[in-house]
Amino acid sequence: MTQLSPDFLTAAKDLLGSAGWSMDSEDLDRVTSPWRGTYKGNTPFLAKPATTEETAALVSLCNRHGVAMTPQGGNTGLVDAGTPHGEICISLQRMTAIRSVDAFNNSLVIEAGAPLVTAQQAADEARRLFPLSLGSEGTATIGGLISTNAGGVAVLRYGMMRDLILGLEVVLPTGEVLNGLSGLRKNNTGYDLKHLFAGAEGTLGIITAATLKLFPKVQRASAWVTCETPDDVVKLLSLVRDHAGDTVTSFEIIPANAIAMVQADVPGTRDPLPSDLPWRVLMEISMSRTAHARDLLEDALAAAYEDGLIRDAILAESVAQAESFWHIRETIPLSKRAYGTALNQDISVPVSRIPDFIEACNAAVLEKYPTAEFVIFGHVGDGNLHYSVCEPAGAEHPVLKGQDEAVFRIIYDQVMAFDGSISAEHGVGRLKRDELERIRPPAATATMRAIKRALDPENLMNPGRVIKT
Amino acid sequence: MTQLSPDFLTAAKDLLGSAGWSMDSEDLDRVTSPWRGTYKGNTPFLAKPATTEETAALVSLCNRHGVAMTPQGGNTGLVDAGTPHGEICISLQRMTAIRSVDAFNNSLVIEAGAPLVTAQQAADEARRLFPLSLGSEGTATIGGLISTNAGGVAVLRYGMMRDLILGLEVVLPTGEVLNGLSGLRKNNTGYDLKHLFAGAEGTLGIITAATLKLFPKVQRASAWVTCETPDDVVKLLSLVRDHAGDTVTSFEIIPANAIAMVQADVPGTRDPLPSDLPWRVLMEISMSRTAHARDLLEDALAAAYEDGLIRDAILAESVAQAESFWHIRETIPLSKRAYGTALNQDISVPVSRIPDFIEACNAAVLEKYPTAEFVIFGHVGDGNLHYSVCEPAGAEHPVLKGQDEAVFRIIYDQVMAFDGSISAEHGVGRLKRDELERIRPPAATATMRAIKRALDPENLMNPGRVIKT
Repeated sequence: MTQLSPDFLTAAKDLLGSAGWSMDSEDLDRVTSPWRGTYKGNTPFLAKPATTEETAALVSLCNRHGVAMTPQGGNTGLVDAGTPHGEICISLQRMTAIRSVDAFNNSLVIEAGAPLVTAQQAADEARRLFPLSLGSEGTATIGGLISTNAGGVAVLRYGMMRDLILGLEVVLPTGEVLNGLSGLRKNNTGYDLKHLFAGAEGTLGIITAATLKLFPKVQRASAWVTCETPDDVVKLLSLVRDHAGDTVTSFEIIPANAIAMVQADVPGTRDPLPSDLPWRVLMEISMSRTAHARDLLEDALAAAYEDGLIRDAILAESVAQAESFWHIRETIPLSKRAYGTALNQDISVPVSRIPDFIEACNAAVLEKYPTAEFVIFGHVGDGNLHYSVCEPAGAEHPVLKGQDEAVFRIIYDQVMAFDGSISAEHGVGRLKRDELERIRPPAATATMRAIKRALDPENLMNPGRVIKT
Repeated sequence: MTQLSPDFLTAAKDLLGSAGWSMDSEDLDRVTSPWRGTYKGNTPFLAKPATTEETAALVSLCNRHGVAMTPQGGNTGLVDAGTPHGEICISLQRMTAIRSVDAFNNSLVIEAGAPLVTAQQAADEARRLFPLSLGSEGTATIGGLISTNAGGVAVLRYGMMRDLILGLEVVLPTGEVLNGLSGLRKNNTGYDLKHLFAGAEGTLGIITAATLKLFPKVQRASAWVTCETPDDVVKLLSLVRDHAGDTVTSFEIIPANAIAMVQADVPGTRDPLPSDLPWRVLMEISMSRTAHARDLLEDALAAAYEDGLIRDAILAESVAQAESFWHIRETIPLSKRAYGTALNQDISVPVSRIPDFIEACNAAVLEKYPTAEFVIFGHVGDGNLHYSVCEPAGAEHPVLKGQDEAVFRIIYDQVMAFDGSISAEHGVGRLKRDELERIRPPAATATMRAIKRALDPENLMNPGRVIKT
């Protein structure tokens, strides 16, 4: 555990005020225990600045005292990026204000500690849409979502979190504040710094506020279909986009065994379309008019049926029915607890290569672990699969427990053979840093390291995440 | 003029081969004379590498000999970024291949020297759309468009050039090749380097190829309307988006006097809807079905008429009619030659502040130049105006000639007062570098300079553009 000098502590407490810090062991325990408890951190001091100015003053103080910092949002990350390991923890939890909403500019300015749901609601009140949507939206914060460049279920249409920001306010490692919140849609006045801080996992500065893009509100049409092969699923995506263009908002692949898994875990869950086919797709089209969206979806599905790409389809007749489809999809990650062992990866490959990747990767795993089962679901439109190698709790001859490294090695090698990414939307953190250094082109790692050293020469800003320094 | 050593010249000629270089004065004159001849460069040597490997070898050679380089695409830029001033010129003109097209992944890989139209055509052949569109698309190259983060008339829907790339291949200032062409839509494996090279105007490396995003093909519905005030125009945009969502692809404001100007310059041009109102809007909705697009546009315009936001409207009944609308819009920049003096700026402000900006900026100019005329047109949906202060050729008491600096100072001050940008889509180059250094937050300039120094410590890669080094 880092020793903090009495001078530093006195100055930090003084500038933060009594509501702005804690050394209480329960508080420290909470910010060092991430949402999925697969690792545990430690910290000597929790800072909770209330303003950008306080954050900047604290960073300056840390600089003068050589104190390392880990910025933290909702602590829902999955790659050990936002949990301190000896650093002081700078939580943005008190900076949750919506600073302004500009409906004509289709933008809002929000502080980094606000949960995603706050942005969604503020957009809704202005008769606009903030389209990012993911399971942890009540807890995950704007700053964390930007710092990890979060994905979710509407990336196909709206892009990832970095695509949804117009500007950022960032406290640099020096303690200076970079104010880039003006909300311009076009601004070619130098290197694009916001895209550097987005996805940097707090290693280049602390995001304190963001200007988010808002979109027109939309009406949704959703369908659930059954498919025979991943190849059909990829062709189906192309066909649906031929009909509906880029109004296709979500296109999620779900395996039959995942539905059985959810049903076992959450009794009463209904399979919308029982079938002996091994795959389902949950798709959503969103447009300004429901009638247009339904027209396109119906025609696309009729054509898909004629082409033999789907066997059965059901269009949601109500918002409640669409939500029941989504409930199954969103319950899959949690329901993997029904398995005794589930080794999870978040990977991507070019969309066109999904079918061959699944076949090759499954075969490679089965070669070493012939009894392995697979739960493979995710965002086909983005080439992003959540790929899990599983074993039932009551397996007679369990072989997977503790095999994380060996299984991941097989998966990583297959991903790289298909020009893919071993971290699609979850990020790098400490968890995948060394593996990525091994497989990333050396020129890319050298460039990232040069940037890190240029902007944080003392290596105090979330050190050791993303790249070795 | 830079003196190149005999050793360097021998080695450069050797590695490029006889088709790969020129010291012919006509060739050198051509690459130092930009499209709009408001400045003139000079160079001792033109390199025309045929491959990424040759480009990399040349950059390594320049490094060893301390030779500065200016990469060049179509030389259509407007800010003096791609014209050498003593540096050797590295033209990408021989690297024009389409390396691959992947319709299921909605992507294509193209070399940097290919003109934009090549990408548009390749997409079309794959029954896809590459949506970037601008006046110089036959000449402007992919590498130049990425390096300047080009805009154009479809930004409202599809974003700027940086938003349309999935990956880049870049020769770094060291001569190493950074290969990031895999075409993944989700790839959170470290800092996003592609967004750093995009918009860097060749100061951080030479883009040699790119993976571009493709989109579903669309059908268009276009309308031309007359409006009384910029305030009505901004409200009209909001209303049309309420009806049509983000299928609104273009939303261009055109002043009545620009139509008169085009008619004077291009005899026979017809005003689609003669009117005594001072403003026009050319808008376009694009969807997978023409009938849907026309429905939405008709309903939106009917509502706008009821609300008093427009006086007259005409929907294009054919592609040819839509093109005749666009012809007027696209002719405006060139037709400004009809004026004796036209001092042009490319600026942006938040969309909501456009009306107040126009009023305030015109008043500030008129205070000093009471006889000034204005041609103000551009991309309302992006907050991006092309703002020109003009004087007729036969003015009795001409006052604007040679007043560029004084007029621009007035405009820049107004832009900054409205939280705007003095370079919306054209970039920085040498032209706006010092002015931007004056008005940009010092922390932003310091961060950019730190990045430049970290990646190009010898300052050989297009030195002096974007930031002072």
